Amino acid sequence: MNFASDNVSPFCPEVLEALSAEASHNAPAYGGDDISQQLDRAFSEMFDTDVAVIPVATGTAANCISLSALVTPYGGVVCHHEAHINEDESTGVAFFTGGAKLLPMDGPTAKLEADALDAFISGQVNRGVHSVAPECVAITQATELGTVYTPAEVAAIGEVCKKHDLRLFMDGARFANAVAHLDCRPADITWKAGVDAISFGATKNGAMAVDAIVLFDTALKSRVEQARKRSGHLHSKHRYLATQLLAYVKNDVWLKNAAHANQAATALANILVEHRGTLAHPADGNELFVKLAPELADRLRAAGVLFHAWPSLGADIYRFVAAWNTDIAQISTLKNTLG
Amino acid sequence: MNFASDNVSPFCPEVLEALSAEASHNAPAYGGDDISQQLDRAFSEMFDTDVAVIPVATGTAANCISLSALVTPYGGVVCHHEAHINEDESTGVAFFTGGAKLLPMDGPTAKLEADALDAFISGQVNRGVHSVAPECVAITQATELGTVYTPAEVAAIGEVCKKHDLRLFMDGARFANAVAHLDCRPADITWKAGVDAISFGATKNGAMAVDAIVLFDTALKSRVEQARKRSGHLHSKHRYLATQLLAYVKNDVWLKNAAHANQAATALANILVEHRGTLAHPADGNELFVKLAPELADRLRAAGVLFHAWPSLGADIYRFVAAWNTDIAQISTLKNTLG
Amino acid sequence: MNFASDNVSPFCPEVLEALSAEASHNAPAYGGDDISQQLDRAFSEMFDTDVAVIPVATGTAANCISLSALVTPYGGVVCHHEAHINEDESTGVAFFTGGAKLLPMDGPTAKLEADALDAFISGQVNRGVHSVAPECVAITQATELGTVYTPAEVAAIGEVCKKHDLRLFMDGARFANAVAHLDCRPADITWKAGVDAISFGATKNGAMAVDAIVLFDTALKSRVEQARKRSGHLHSKHRYLATQLLAYVKNDVWLKNAAHANQAATALANILVEHRGTLAHPADGNELFVKLAPELADRLRAAGVLFHAWPSLGADIYRFVAAWNTDIAQISTLKNTLG
Amino acid sequence: MNFASDNVSPFCPEVLEALSAEASHNAPAYGGDDISQQLDRAFSEMFDTDVAVIPVATGTAANCISLSALVTPYGGVVCHHEAHINEDESTGVAFFTGGAKLLPMDGPTAKLEADALDAFISGQVNRGVHSVAPECVAITQATELGTVYTPAEVAAIGEVCKKHDLRLFMDGARFANAVAHLDCRPADITWKAGVDAISFGATKNGAMAVDAIVLFDTALKSRVEQARKRSGHLHSKHRYLATQLLAYVKNDVWLKNAAHANQAATALANILVEHRGTLAHPADGNELFVKLAPELADRLRAAGVLFHAWPSLGADIYRFVAAWNTDIAQISTLKNTLG
Repeated sequence: MNFASDNVSPFCPEVLEALSAEASHNAPAYGGDDISQQLDRAFSEMFDTDVAVIPVATGTAANCISLSALVTPYGGVVCHHEAHINEDESTGVAFFTGGAKLLPMDGPTAKLEADALDAFISGQVNRGVHSVAPECVAITQATELGTVYTPAEVAAIGEVCKKHDLRLFMDGARFANAVAHLDCRPADITWKAGVDAISFGATKNGAMAVDAIVLFDTALKSRVEQARKRSGHLHSKHRYLATQLLAYVKNDVWLKNAAHANQAATALANILVEHRGTLAHPADGNELFVKLAPELADRLRAAGVLFHAWPSLGADIYRFVAAWNTDIAQISTLKNTLG
Repeated sequence: MNFASDNVSPFCPEVLEALSAEASHNAPAYGGDDISQQLDRAFSEMFDTDVAVIPVATGTAANCISLSALVTPYGGVVCHHEAHINEDESTGVAFFTGGAKLLPMDGPTAKLEADALDAFISGQVNRGVHSVAPECVAITQATELGTVYTPAEVAAIGEVCKKHDLRLFMDGARFANAVAHLDCRPADITWKAGVDAISFGATKNGAMAVDAIVLFDTALKSRVEQARKRSGHLHSKHRYLATQLLAYVKNDVWLKNAAHANQAATALANILVEHRGTLAHPADGNELFVKLAPELADRLRAAGVLFHAWPSLGADIYRFVAAWNTDIAQISTLKNTLG
Repeated sequence: MNFASDNVSPFCPEVLEALSAEASHNAPAYGGDDISQQLDRAFSEMFDTDVAVIPVATGTAANCISLSALVTPYGGVVCHHEAHINEDESTGVAFFTGGAKLLPMDGPTAKLEADALDAFISGQVNRGVHSVAPECVAITQATELGTVYTPAEVAAIGEVCKKHDLRLFMDGARFANAVAHLDCRPADITWKAGVDAISFGATKNGAMAVDAIVLFDTALKSRVEQARKRSGHLHSKHRYLATQLLAYVKNDVWLKNAAHANQAATALANILVEHRGTLAHPADGNELFVKLAPELADRLRAAGVLFHAWPSLGADIYRFVAAWNTDIAQISTLKNTLG
Repeated sequence: MNFASDNVSPFCPEVLEALSAEASHNAPAYGGDDISQQLDRAFSEMFDTDVAVIPVATGTAANCISLSALVTPYGGVVCHHEAHINEDESTGVAFFTGGAKLLPMDGPTAKLEADALDAFISGQVNRGVHSVAPECVAITQATELGTVYTPAEVAAIGEVCKKHDLRLFMDGARFANAVAHLDCRPADITWKAGVDAISFGATKNGAMAVDAIVLFDTALKSRVEQARKRSGHLHSKHRYLATQLLAYVKNDVWLKNAAHANQAATALANILVEHRGTLAHPADGNELFVKLAPELADRLRAAGVLFHAWPSLGADIYRFVAAWNTDIAQISTLKNTLG
């Protein structure tokens, strides 16, 4: 069983079916086709408000292009040290924004806390042009450590942003897992809580290669489209990004896939805890961080289970990520394997 | 019939079949999978030399990332005024290179001529740090006007580059159409002629969304991979770029598709010429630029044929682009339609 | 006699005196000092309107920082092929703007003509995000070929900018020479004619190292100050930039210096024309472009006169630049030397 | 008395004299003059090795241009959290390098310690293209907190850099104060200790506006000159940068000025300590960080003494900076004032 990452999963049958259906006829390029034209409406319904949707093929593109429309080249982006934009996207943010600086801070389980955020921003020495002023806060939902912000937590962060006149961006690479966990409306943890834009992840959760920039401030659309083009992220056969995305959000495929992944993670957590594993922190979504006796880790590996050690959280901590296609029945067989 | 662009075509059955076969199992992310690992070998065989292959989803990404590894931020890229990088990629080259400048020049049918190029480069005033020194020449094969450089023509340009110690890059968005037209080995118009790197187009000619950076100077690989990552062009499910690409080059699908498109363009050209259309210049590949009587253009449109006026080449000039899926039999029916 | 450039001249006595007077006491850094605080008022009086003044040490900095506040990273700057920003500032514009593209066009004697400009802008193919849209027009006053726009000519260009909703920037490296030639108010060729910002040159015309960004749209001030800081152009001992600049504009030193240089150029022109030299075009300011018989050029060189050949204007064309310190009496001695 | 910063001081008499002597004659522009040509030799003698010297007007320019030649746009620059490049130069490093990332770490009194540095670098998670790899270490000598690295401490850092194949850069804005304190050869704390390039400060210590990039790896010269030009830091009247710099290094003016400033700081420290002030840490150079009873701070202010609170070091901590022109005799009068 492969818990190395949700990136190892293939794309889901609904996406394959939709792509196949689009494989036999011509259509206008660069988003002029019927399917691309349906995106704004589909997402506006999902988010209970008018949004602009700009699909790109990767989460890094979605994050960095969004941020390039939210900050100046001289500005700062406050984020958690663990944030994907800080730890896993090379120098992407500086590249796309023309030099904006990440201002990382701490917080439990990769979450920013509103009070600490308020203090951090207030404490940024303001020496005018000499120092970098925060212009945006970026949070990840679900976080890189598998935890989920409640609507109230996001709203509190939104209030801090409003107080300091900052933008609020959400990296939603695993947004579906968060919504499935919270059982809330997408609006509750986004624009209603003060979020200006999100990257809405699909790739990890059933698509082949598409994440969507969703703009609640639709005035940003033109800048995002310009930034997308010049960075080579406007696909000529744009309809295939749109096709994946529509298939993913239709009939709640995105929620079904995420709920499955979350459930698989829970099933695995239960078994590991039974074998004296200890969760490093609550597993809200599809990622587990568990302390395991080395001997147990060895037996899992011997049973063909793939996962990563996560030394930044401490010795003997391991990460397991479930995906939309994780076989829950097979997880229960682990019970027997481990004895 | 849709001759608006080859971008309007869908992806081809071989690509669909390959993607479908990869839709049901897990595999390592970011290029660690078996299929991604086959790319270098497959392309090395095709090019009769060791190459490094880095796939990305768009031609703009392939062009601009390549150029970012070939020039400094202070350098110049000599190209034709009609070049896609100059006319159709926004400010992509400056963005990816950190400020390098395009130095456009003229030439018949969008082709650079070696002698004129030599003179142009020699004529660039060299005021040291004040002016921008050419560091690279970029040509497009087949060109944006549907013409094709012969191996001797590319080699002559390669000689000029060598003389001036410049890099040579080839935008190969329609490389397949050029090779199909020339009936040569890919090597003959690339590294054997002095080309350092090409963007090898697949999207227009049968893929869904993949073009490959092919490096003949494999020492550039690390820079290209860093530039790909930071610009958001490294796909987590990299195998699907690789899958498309392998299906496209296996069994000469790429050549078969291109030959079909070229043949369709020729078939259409013949009919238009019979109706007193005049080719603006030879149609080597899958693009036609034809002078038509307004009345003929109207009748084509009335018959449901899609194509663009091309005013930059003159009044009454129209562009028709055939693709891998253009129905040649249907083209012959135009004969009857037009009477 | 040195006519190689006005850059070869030293700084003028008024500047030396002012700097000396500021050499013996402490004062706040970064522009908090009394002298720096006087700049806005002094220039507002000179320009008959409220302006914001941001001094920097070089003309390239003044030009590029200004443009970075006038265009987006995806935009285009229309200028003349001969423009300093196009020919002499390396890749500065792309660097400071984050990738904006120069869109050079032609025009007689390095001047843009309003009608041609209108046509050029209208003729820029607009393919949305694919092409680069003009966002700003940049003109040089006096031009790189020593000609001067009349107030009416600038105003006509301003009208074109307004029509197309573009910004208008003026490279005023030799602004003083233009005003001295026109005998107009500075306002007549700047904000009253639609100019948003100028670089107001001082270095060539009597300062040591200072040019000023003068903003007629004072809302740009914050962006300019941020761009100045991050590019290393905010001087800690800012008062010495301000000291030079104030000494330069007080008591019309700037106009007196420029009038002298213009007069010296005229005196030289007269002598050269007497010896069958031919002006390539009218010498409005302090630069002459003259066609000389090779034998005359040789005799000038033999007499110790320094000047440059200017092959881009044709064979046997030479450039002579007079400065604020050119000895007019000595020019008349040339008469005797040349016989 | 003004201890707000050494930036509040004017330029010194030797610089004024030298500038005055250069104020009456013409000379080639852009560094072609005799004085500019003397820089490399003068600094090579001072540093006991062949160096290349590129003067610019500000320390931020010297730092950022240097770094742009030492790292790739994808690389990381390890520095102390207190580093000027991290805290006081806006987004300059990202701007000049095209996106390189500062990787700040801690250390006592703003100094990096070799062992901690080694551990920090080793601890940077290396996920290939996903993470930012350190490419350069930047230290400040004297540090932002007024402490000085010994030759052995720099050499130990140099060894760490060599071990990890990193470049070593030194921000020498107060290099003179460090050398005066250590009473060593400049070589001992630079190239002999593994430093590739330094910014050699002059502005704070007696010049008007010039700091020099000094390259021990002279192969970097071309890149630095290109970066200087495109960023608007190449002065046309380059000789005045060179004039300041030569006057500053001739006859050990730089050391004399720095020794004076250091001595003034010591004199002030003694008086403050007598009044129960406590140094936060040793004052090696010309900067003091002192804990003062609020009542004493008030009395100093009442006596017209200017200085800043420094809350980042703790409550009741104040910074005092002496300069080349601080009146030591006047400092002793403080004794009486404070009683």
